[in-house]
Amino acid sequence: MAIQGVLRPGHAQIRVLNLEQGVHFYRDVLGLLETGRDDQGRVYFKAWDEQDHNSVVIREADRAGIDFFAFKVLDNDTLLHFERALNDYGLETSRMPAGEMLETGERVRFTLPTGHLIELYADKTWVGNDSAELNPAPWNANAEKGIAPIRMDHCLLYGPDTAAAKKILIEVLGFQLVERTLTPDREGEIALWLSCSNKAHDIAFVEHSEPGKLHHVAFQLESWEKVLRAADIMAMNDVPVDIGPTRHGITRGCTIYAWDPSGNRFETFMGGYQTYPDHKPITWTFEGLGEGGGLDYAHRKLHDTFLTVVT
Amino acid sequence: MAIQGVLRPGHAQIRVLNLEQGVHFYRDVLGLLETGRDDQGRVYFKAWDEQDHNSVVIREADRAGIDFFAFKVLDNDTLLHFERALNDYGLETSRMPAGEMLETGERVRFTLPTGHLIELYADKTWVGNDSAELNPAPWNANAEKGIAPIRMDHCLLYGPDTAAAKKILIEVLGFQLVERTLTPDREGEIALWLSCSNKAHDIAFVEHSEPGKLHHVAFQLESWEKVLRAADIMAMNDVPVDIGPTRHGITRGCTIYAWDPSGNRFETFMGGYQTYPDHKPITWTFEGLGEGGGLDYAHRKLHDTFLTVVT
Amino acid sequence: MAIQGVLRPGHAQIRVLNLEQGVHFYRDVLGLLETGRDDQGRVYFKAWDEQDHNSVVIREADRAGIDFFAFKVLDNDTLLHFERALNDYGLETSRMPAGEMLETGERVRFTLPTGHLIELYADKTWVGNDSAELNPAPWNANAEKGIAPIRMDHCLLYGPDTAAAKKILIEVLGFQLVERTLTPDREGEIALWLSCSNKAHDIAFVEHSEPGKLHHVAFQLESWEKVLRAADIMAMNDVPVDIGPTRHGITRGCTIYAWDPSGNRFETFMGGYQTYPDHKPITWTFEGLGEGGGLDYAHRKLHDTFLTVVT
Amino acid sequence: MAIQGVLRPGHAQIRVLNLEQGVHFYRDVLGLLETGRDDQGRVYFKAWDEQDHNSVVIREADRAGIDFFAFKVLDNDTLLHFERALNDYGLETSRMPAGEMLETGERVRFTLPTGHLIELYADKTWVGNDSAELNPAPWNANAEKGIAPIRMDHCLLYGPDTAAAKKILIEVLGFQLVERTLTPDREGEIALWLSCSNKAHDIAFVEHSEPGKLHHVAFQLESWEKVLRAADIMAMNDVPVDIGPTRHGITRGCTIYAWDPSGNRFETFMGGYQTYPDHKPITWTFEGLGEGGGLDYAHRKLHDTFLTVVT
Repeated sequence: MAIQGVLRPGHAQIRVLNLEQGVHFYRDVLGLLETGRDDQGRVYFKAWDEQDHNSVVIREADRAGIDFFAFKVLDNDTLLHFERALNDYGLETSRMPAGEMLETGERVRFTLPTGHLIELYADKTWVGNDSAELNPAPWNANAEKGIAPIRMDHCLLYGPDTAAAKKILIEVLGFQLVERTLTPDREGEIALWLSCSNKAHDIAFVEHSEPGKLHHVAFQLESWEKVLRAADIMAMNDVPVDIGPTRHGITRGCTIYAWDPSGNRFETFMGGYQTYPDHKPITWTFEGLGEGGGLDYAHRKLHDTFLTVVT
Repeated sequence: MAIQGVLRPGHAQIRVLNLEQGVHFYRDVLGLLETGRDDQGRVYFKAWDEQDHNSVVIREADRAGIDFFAFKVLDNDTLLHFERALNDYGLETSRMPAGEMLETGERVRFTLPTGHLIELYADKTWVGNDSAELNPAPWNANAEKGIAPIRMDHCLLYGPDTAAAKKILIEVLGFQLVERTLTPDREGEIALWLSCSNKAHDIAFVEHSEPGKLHHVAFQLESWEKVLRAADIMAMNDVPVDIGPTRHGITRGCTIYAWDPSGNRFETFMGGYQTYPDHKPITWTFEGLGEGGGLDYAHRKLHDTFLTVVT
Repeated sequence: MAIQGVLRPGHAQIRVLNLEQGVHFYRDVLGLLETGRDDQGRVYFKAWDEQDHNSVVIREADRAGIDFFAFKVLDNDTLLHFERALNDYGLETSRMPAGEMLETGERVRFTLPTGHLIELYADKTWVGNDSAELNPAPWNANAEKGIAPIRMDHCLLYGPDTAAAKKILIEVLGFQLVERTLTPDREGEIALWLSCSNKAHDIAFVEHSEPGKLHHVAFQLESWEKVLRAADIMAMNDVPVDIGPTRHGITRGCTIYAWDPSGNRFETFMGGYQTYPDHKPITWTFEGLGEGGGLDYAHRKLHDTFLTVVT
Repeated sequence: MAIQGVLRPGHAQIRVLNLEQGVHFYRDVLGLLETGRDDQGRVYFKAWDEQDHNSVVIREADRAGIDFFAFKVLDNDTLLHFERALNDYGLETSRMPAGEMLETGERVRFTLPTGHLIELYADKTWVGNDSAELNPAPWNANAEKGIAPIRMDHCLLYGPDTAAAKKILIEVLGFQLVERTLTPDREGEIALWLSCSNKAHDIAFVEHSEPGKLHHVAFQLESWEKVLRAADIMAMNDVPVDIGPTRHGITRGCTIYAWDPSGNRFETFMGGYQTYPDHKPITWTFEGLGEGGGLDYAHRKLHDTFLTVVT
């Protein structure tokens, strides 16, 4: 089969400082669909065009940030394969039982050298996107409730030793390096964009001293006009915006960075090219990230917040 | 590795009735870049954002149509693997020597039950998309010469026994079925859309009595506004249009079908969702293809030309 | 004052065969806001971004079509001025009393040689577009209910002696001729587009043997992406589409023609240039209307329905 | 006639520090068409879709800024009318002879209390937009050379006593007030947007201590996607960007502010609603200009440069 192994980003569990404020934001402003609440008080959401039960989970906590980020793998044999491969590589794993998250099967967990908890799982209940079984319409009313992204698309994580994380993702989990930013001395990499698919990125990292930090979780929109609509809805709802609307030189995506009410950055973006394993990674210098437009192609500058504000 | 096996549509060889007219169309109107001519008189093109040497090859002939459609595979081991798997499945294959096509390695050929010659290859010279090696711009002047698609994206082939072709593509080559249209009695499938990637389709088939027929080769655009621009450029150049601008209910793509000067249909389209191996195929009834908007969502009718005009 | 005299299309009264079906269509599918019903059983609507009380009025009748089309003029002095000027020109006028239409002042009526009843009025109650009085948002939820045009924009009327109608609109009411299509012998004009503003058209005519016929009332959308959204919503609601999405060569507008449940054609369109009194009228030949793309720039043909289907 | 008096912004004469750098920018980056050079060394440009000979004139000088901004009026009777009306109002006028500017008739000049030299003229040679005389195409290759705006659209001027300027524009020249921003104490107006047409603005003012200052000259684009394209072209050409892409809450226009090589700010924008004399002016508080999103709807802040950087 052409696509196997790790399929796609599956879910992100995000900490919010106030649950109902978080629900209001993720459901009514970002426009995800609430799909459940569990007895730990967590609230589950999916984007309107996603077909599995959930992709974003929020829980109330004293500190914002990300608890874990998960990838769906092809099947349970694949899950077992990766579990063993991680162990063989020298990484400890643990299993979260099926049902610990609503409508989600067993999850294999491990911690990247960057301090981030990553999960793999094979099963999540199919709930569909409300399309008819035959002759489905291309979209429905949910596609216009709030910002209404199509999917939870990727995340950008900050932590130390991203080189080691990259090695694990590529060598053990089969990701490919799509783009990268060099350190100022051009001898190392300060930022990495990795894909397990044809998308320009499924996960990204920036080298950072503090482990386990979240830069943003990203949500995909269909068009540049939807990015403008997202900006309008952010303004109508007093959502603080960090950067954009603009284009990222890196990945070519067209984007807004903004913050949820707890200070977790999120991205709404469209575009970016299709990547393949035979494509060479694209390289940005450190100056390229800033003045070269890697981060903000319209403004060609390294916004202060980019390297400093994380949760 | 997450993506392996068959990577993507690699090249299509199209027959044109007049070579220079064909060159004018594919280069100046469609806006592909001419990358070479060989001693057989064939002319090679690539889309501006493609990185390999060629994706469309035209040759002059008495009859329009498609000579062969090829997929790039991950590497030569994969090529050998598929060659054997095809043989094991009972299909004869032959090898075309490296260099028989410009800048292209050995190709493994076989004929589908639908009468289409399909090729697999692992090597084609990387020529890039004229981006800088460091800090590349998102596009360049080539992106605005003619219609200027991003890539040659897929084809729709007409022939008998598409069920057998589907079986080969899925079982031997690892494709997945993404969408399908049922026969009027709902007991069989009259049309199939298959993917070897996250794209909604890399190849498609319609059941047809005559073997080896081409319905269209498709070229991807970035946006619905680029589809309008394509329509304008078609009008400015007297390109006959078949259907569109409209949306296909099937794949959700937004599209124009038109004809090259030799009568080969081509498509310029944008959009369509991302698919994954765990997604269920989407099913259209035969009425769904027409009145249900599968073909033309705006008009909801089965255009006469759709089932009858092929080359 | 730079703009005076006739300001803009103000209201159209359209006959529908079934009132509740009509209300469903104009309110829930086209997405106009219902603003009132009167004791004659008429139902009043406005587009979300219009500021006066109504712009579309429907009434149930045995026969579809248009009762009258009205323009708002600057003030009551202007109304009186035009009334006298029409009389001086030799046209009979009559006054409809204030309040005969909801929230609308006195209307001066006259019949064009084409057989269409035209009204002028100076007063209609300002109801606003639901924006805040200070620091208004650019749009609100009404902008996404149904197709949700910005405004009722213009109409295209069919009838005899359009040359005489043109003369009245230009010489008496101060319109300018913006575009025109010649008769096949190029000695006369078969179609006329006239403006009282910077818009490419506020009213248009096609020469036709039967008087008083409606080709379409047009509604303006903000973008080509909104035209696609309109097509999708038409499909979702089984609205029969005549032509489009496509571009009109004439006016450059990007458009869909479709029919309401009673068979009245309507248009949803975007774009078109800004015109000024010092611009020369643009001329299309009769072949230009069809093969030249005047009607349908993508397809360059004269659709049969264009000259034959009116209400 | 519905539109008479002042028709539209006609030309702006801008001072640049280096002529050839200026020509490169206005021609090759902004994408205006060079239409002539005069014996004073001035270089003339027009936007591709403008029909008169020129709309932007640059001259080399020691100091950047605007020499004068001109409006085309309906005809020479109108020009004479306004000349007398200005004199009657107590403003001195002077006449620049026909031909002093290339292909331009006599110009009546006067100075606004804000210190800006304004011109009125009735004649400028019609050169067209390269369309065919019959059955014109909607655009041509010039529409894709550089940023390629449709037109020079309006300007924003900074100077003292904008209240007096407003009075002249409204009472003598027939403009209407479309939007305004109040001073912090809400007792006066700090910014004004005025129209002589259906456009949301043809000229704008901000109260400022220094007279005769230029904030920006604005150029109109067709779509939000063209605004993204403009941002990309600015980046590719190292054009410094001030604000955007974003939406102005004021006028709803979607915009980029950037600087030419001499430090003159220019705007490339799309959108904005149609205004009419019976519409009430829209009012923004001073906080509304900043935190209310009047300037930058996505970011809702008063950028430092907005009130301080002018030429």
